[in-house]
Amino acid sequence: MDQLFDSLFPICRSITGEGLRETLSLLTEHLPLENFAVPTGTRVFDWEIPQEWVIRDAWLKDPHGNVIADFKVSNLHIVNYSEPIHVKLSLDEMKKHLYTVPHLPKAIPYVTSYYKRRWGFCISHEVLEALPEGEYEAFIDSSFIQGELNYGHSVLPGKSDREVLISSYICHPSLANNELSGPLVATFLYKRIAQWQQRRFTYRFVFLPETIGSISYLHRFGDHLKQNLHAGLVLTCLGGEKSLSYKLSRSGFNPIDRIWKQMLAQESLQGNTRHFTPEHGSDERQYCSPGFNLPVGQMSRMVYGAYPGYHNSLDTKETMTIEALQHSVDDLEKILLANEAEGYYINRFPYGEVKLDKHGLYPDMNSSTTFVRSNNQIEDNRVQLNRTLTFLNYADGEHLLTEIADLCRCSIESLLPYVKLLSQKGIIDGPYFEKGVSL
Amino acid sequence: MDQLFDSLFPICRSITGEGLRETLSLLTEHLPLENFAVPTGTRVFDWEIPQEWVIRDAWLKDPHGNVIADFKVSNLHIVNYSEPIHVKLSLDEMKKHLYTVPHLPKAIPYVTSYYKRRWGFCISHEVLEALPEGEYEAFIDSSFIQGELNYGHSVLPGKSDREVLISSYICHPSLANNELSGPLVATFLYKRIAQWQQRRFTYRFVFLPETIGSISYLHRFGDHLKQNLHAGLVLTCLGGEKSLSYKLSRSGFNPIDRIWKQMLAQESLQGNTRHFTPEHGSDERQYCSPGFNLPVGQMSRMVYGAYPGYHNSLDTKETMTIEALQHSVDDLEKILLANEAEGYYINRFPYGEVKLDKHGLYPDMNSSTTFVRSNNQIEDNRVQLNRTLTFLNYADGEHLLTEIADLCRCSIESLLPYVKLLSQKGIIDGPYFEKGVSL
Amino acid sequence: MDQLFDSLFPICRSITGEGLRETLSLLTEHLPLENFAVPTGTRVFDWEIPQEWVIRDAWLKDPHGNVIADFKVSNLHIVNYSEPIHVKLSLDEMKKHLYTVPHLPKAIPYVTSYYKRRWGFCISHEVLEALPEGEYEAFIDSSFIQGELNYGHSVLPGKSDREVLISSYICHPSLANNELSGPLVATFLYKRIAQWQQRRFTYRFVFLPETIGSISYLHRFGDHLKQNLHAGLVLTCLGGEKSLSYKLSRSGFNPIDRIWKQMLAQESLQGNTRHFTPEHGSDERQYCSPGFNLPVGQMSRMVYGAYPGYHNSLDTKETMTIEALQHSVDDLEKILLANEAEGYYINRFPYGEVKLDKHGLYPDMNSSTTFVRSNNQIEDNRVQLNRTLTFLNYADGEHLLTEIADLCRCSIESLLPYVKLLSQKGIIDGPYFEKGVSL
Repeated sequence: MDQLFDSLFPICRSITGEGLRETLSLLTEHLPLENFAVPTGTRVFDWEIPQEWVIRDAWLKDPHGNVIADFKVSNLHIVNYSEPIHVKLSLDEMKKHLYTVPHLPKAIPYVTSYYKRRWGFCISHEVLEALPEGEYEAFIDSSFIQGELNYGHSVLPGKSDREVLISSYICHPSLANNELSGPLVATFLYKRIAQWQQRRFTYRFVFLPETIGSISYLHRFGDHLKQNLHAGLVLTCLGGEKSLSYKLSRSGFNPIDRIWKQMLAQESLQGNTRHFTPEHGSDERQYCSPGFNLPVGQMSRMVYGAYPGYHNSLDTKETMTIEALQHSVDDLEKILLANEAEGYYINRFPYGEVKLDKHGLYPDMNSSTTFVRSNNQIEDNRVQLNRTLTFLNYADGEHLLTEIADLCRCSIESLLPYVKLLSQKGIIDGPYFEKGVSL
Repeated sequence: MDQLFDSLFPICRSITGEGLRETLSLLTEHLPLENFAVPTGTRVFDWEIPQEWVIRDAWLKDPHGNVIADFKVSNLHIVNYSEPIHVKLSLDEMKKHLYTVPHLPKAIPYVTSYYKRRWGFCISHEVLEALPEGEYEAFIDSSFIQGELNYGHSVLPGKSDREVLISSYICHPSLANNELSGPLVATFLYKRIAQWQQRRFTYRFVFLPETIGSISYLHRFGDHLKQNLHAGLVLTCLGGEKSLSYKLSRSGFNPIDRIWKQMLAQESLQGNTRHFTPEHGSDERQYCSPGFNLPVGQMSRMVYGAYPGYHNSLDTKETMTIEALQHSVDDLEKILLANEAEGYYINRFPYGEVKLDKHGLYPDMNSSTTFVRSNNQIEDNRVQLNRTLTFLNYADGEHLLTEIADLCRCSIESLLPYVKLLSQKGIIDGPYFEKGVSL
Repeated sequence: MDQLFDSLFPICRSITGEGLRETLSLLTEHLPLENFAVPTGTRVFDWEIPQEWVIRDAWLKDPHGNVIADFKVSNLHIVNYSEPIHVKLSLDEMKKHLYTVPHLPKAIPYVTSYYKRRWGFCISHEVLEALPEGEYEAFIDSSFIQGELNYGHSVLPGKSDREVLISSYICHPSLANNELSGPLVATFLYKRIAQWQQRRFTYRFVFLPETIGSISYLHRFGDHLKQNLHAGLVLTCLGGEKSLSYKLSRSGFNPIDRIWKQMLAQESLQGNTRHFTPEHGSDERQYCSPGFNLPVGQMSRMVYGAYPGYHNSLDTKETMTIEALQHSVDDLEKILLANEAEGYYINRFPYGEVKLDKHGLYPDMNSSTTFVRSNNQIEDNRVQLNRTLTFLNYADGEHLLTEIADLCRCSIESLLPYVKLLSQKGIIDGPYFEKGVSL
């Protein structure tokens, strides 16, 4: 993961262009991506694919010829989608094209202007403050061409056609947490799921430029997703913090929303929950637009906007950490494994209590006495017995596994061994997607 | 409003009779009332129209011939619907026919006995306490005749046949807050609504004697209201206090109930909320009787029973104030304007986000940077942008405007300019009455 | 009740056998039980009727020939369902067959081993601690025979076929609260209900061995109960404490659940509420197994597991008290009387307010004045008037009596006189089982 990070970091990505293709190509070495291209000018719903931005070089010189900002040093120095220019301007005139983060004097901001032609340079505020009067020279060697917008996806088939979507974006240049954390976690989560012995769901991994990319993806695959999507996650900003931060889907009640809340309540995961907001966030805003309203949430760790390095040069591998990404892969796998088991179950012996000792599942003396004799041992058995009996009572086709876990006062994760054991013994059927399968 | 108050105040109103007709006649100078009469003895549901009460004169004299109570001085002195009498009685005997408010020694109470024949005088408690022993003479020149019960209404047509009902009563004699505040506010609210450029709803203004009047009205127009009523308000006691007091409709969820709660929660209005109670109140008890169960609440300011002047001679223009009635007209207009926009909306570009800049609705650089450059200005834009995006996401035919306002954390009133702008730009359709209009 | 207790207490009951039949026979002197027998080996759902256990004698002697435990002294001394044995063992070997309650040194525990063949003796811990080394002699004269499992029931017919089930168990030997309290309360509750002037519901009283007995009962009568059961209660541990403890049915919303919660909220009963738990409790676990899911709760007073005498020789008449059982009968009758009236009502005069004075139900002067004249008297009438008007408004076929009581802020019990009066005057119809009977 560390190596892949290092090879992806320097690339100057944008919502179209060579950086995007190079990124997809590097990812393809790790998972079998099918890549797609949408030509410039294609109408996608209320939007249109913009021209490709080609950037070759850019620099800004002060009155003494010193280079103040150089694209070759950091691709953050150039306003993304800047038009070509070669001018000499006074400091005051030039300042209209300079962007800084005043409260973070050492940071170079990340600025874009995709849909209105502008040009500009991004520098640290302390450099700005020290600039002498005089004539500045700005040079940007860029062009806009009829090209395409690129994205890729990879599908891991499962027993059911119902799908779980994992979507991440690949359009930001040299930023760590708010760019590479998403596709890196997605890639290594793919490897995990590919190794599972069986998959109930089909898993769809998508890598695309933010907003226009997901709108393009929905333009092509939206109807398919409307029919087949069981749950989905947009991955973004998955480095940094110790615990996850989950933004619920638009309904707030999709399967992963439920599992997340259940695991949090039972402390099987640490984290905080954000409500769905259509006005800021990532591609969940598109997946959850009213015409699609897909069951897609967004998983983060160090959330965009809530840390100093957001959208500037302080967003590095050191503040993100590869270790945090590994934790994200672990936590996401845990959630998706719970999702594999979530659903409705049927107790095949629903009339009266199941005779557990017959099936090798019960202490055969009445329990209060046994308790007296061997306190600790029975205390363990008692928990197991209680969970077994509670599970079997609510395995009625009317209660979700998350609800049964609530009734057992344990996490859905802790019930997975019971699901396995009772299934193997032929006592339960399931999981079913729909409520009300008859007993 | 002040003049109309002064001309209405001295009239001796009751649930039938000349005072009622005179009141309707004075109101007709301000709004085009259609008047109705129901003959004495007519059966209206479980009730029957009583005989008309005609009162010409009444007085009570002490042993020295001093006039203790004189109908010509105040119509509150006579128990409303008193039978004719001319008797001389000892103080003890006479006291059985005297009514006072012991805890308010200067107040003359307002007492009625519509459905049981009695006679009596109302005087201040301090007068009662000072009465000397001896023979008292009581004279009441009244009669009961076969006549009619009167009420009037006025209908302002709108684009839809769905109606908003404004109902008030006109059966109390010389009382200010608990009589004239209702019909005065209704009359001047009518003038406001008549001046609106357009009306989505049809507005029905009703003036009638309390209880028996609304039961008579429902007997004639109840079926029409059951079919057409969208929401309604009984207006009573709208003077005095600084903020409104709203009694929810029987369901607690009619459109005005929702708007009221939303505006209160977002501090767009000040006030307190009362639950529906069938056991006390005004004509909402009849409109909300189980056979009709109409969506009618009741709006007050200085609520009946909760102020010293309730049902006695302390209820004057000075404690009510004309200014408070004007505030009531303003607040009610605000609520009804919100109600005009309440409903379900449809975003016509529901697939992916609307491309706001195309429609002139979006800053064209990414926002965090813009924020850095111009803090205050963008803070304003950000609120507008957030509300626009939130509105468009939930303009899905499934969310009411009040719900969208909740999601925007602002009052429904603050969203009205967005409704107007987005409608004008052809981006949204609505409001619709019913949920689930397809996208 | 005291006499019946004394005759039932010494019997050595088990889940099958002579003690069970003797208990049923003694109960039949108090209520007309129809008795049933299920042959050994009969399959009942996932279970099988075990062989009958016949116990004639059992004793344990220390090395000096002193009798340490004697079945004839207390039937708790023998592990219930012990196999026959006659052995001499060292103290260490013998200890593997001895059961005590270490934290209650004087108590003899109650131990069973129904479904695995074992033998053992139960003694107090202080006796165990004082046992000298040496050879011990154990003698158990028991046998297992092809016999039957017995239970009985008695049905009190009512106007409707819908049934209320009262179920209790009769399989524990000499224990008071956790054995005899249930059948004793059931028996005397039967006597009360048999004396009611009329019964809306049919009442079914069931006496059976716990678990295997109720499973057998469901095997035979489960389909009938699924069709006809309106509500039910398992009675257990009804002695001791001052207030009741109710375990809700599986749904938490059956009629008795609702009535219980309403009466508790309005302090018409004292008690605490337990949620349904499938993993411990009594026969409600079988009635509420997912294949039946019957509306059955469980009523207790001094709950199993929560008092020192639970499942040991400290559970006596003195700690239980006959007086507590009488309170249980009283409280249960109160609940069942409320249940008789629970349901939906229809106001036959639903259009406008009912003209109460016509029906002799209303003070005929307006109330605020009357209030002035006679404070206390009217304060009483006002409560009655308010409840009458509230009841009539919500007697719309949509509100349960428990809900109307909530709206009246009184207990369902306090509304019973109103139900009676308004029914007698022909103003209301009901109670109906189903919502939405048209007005």
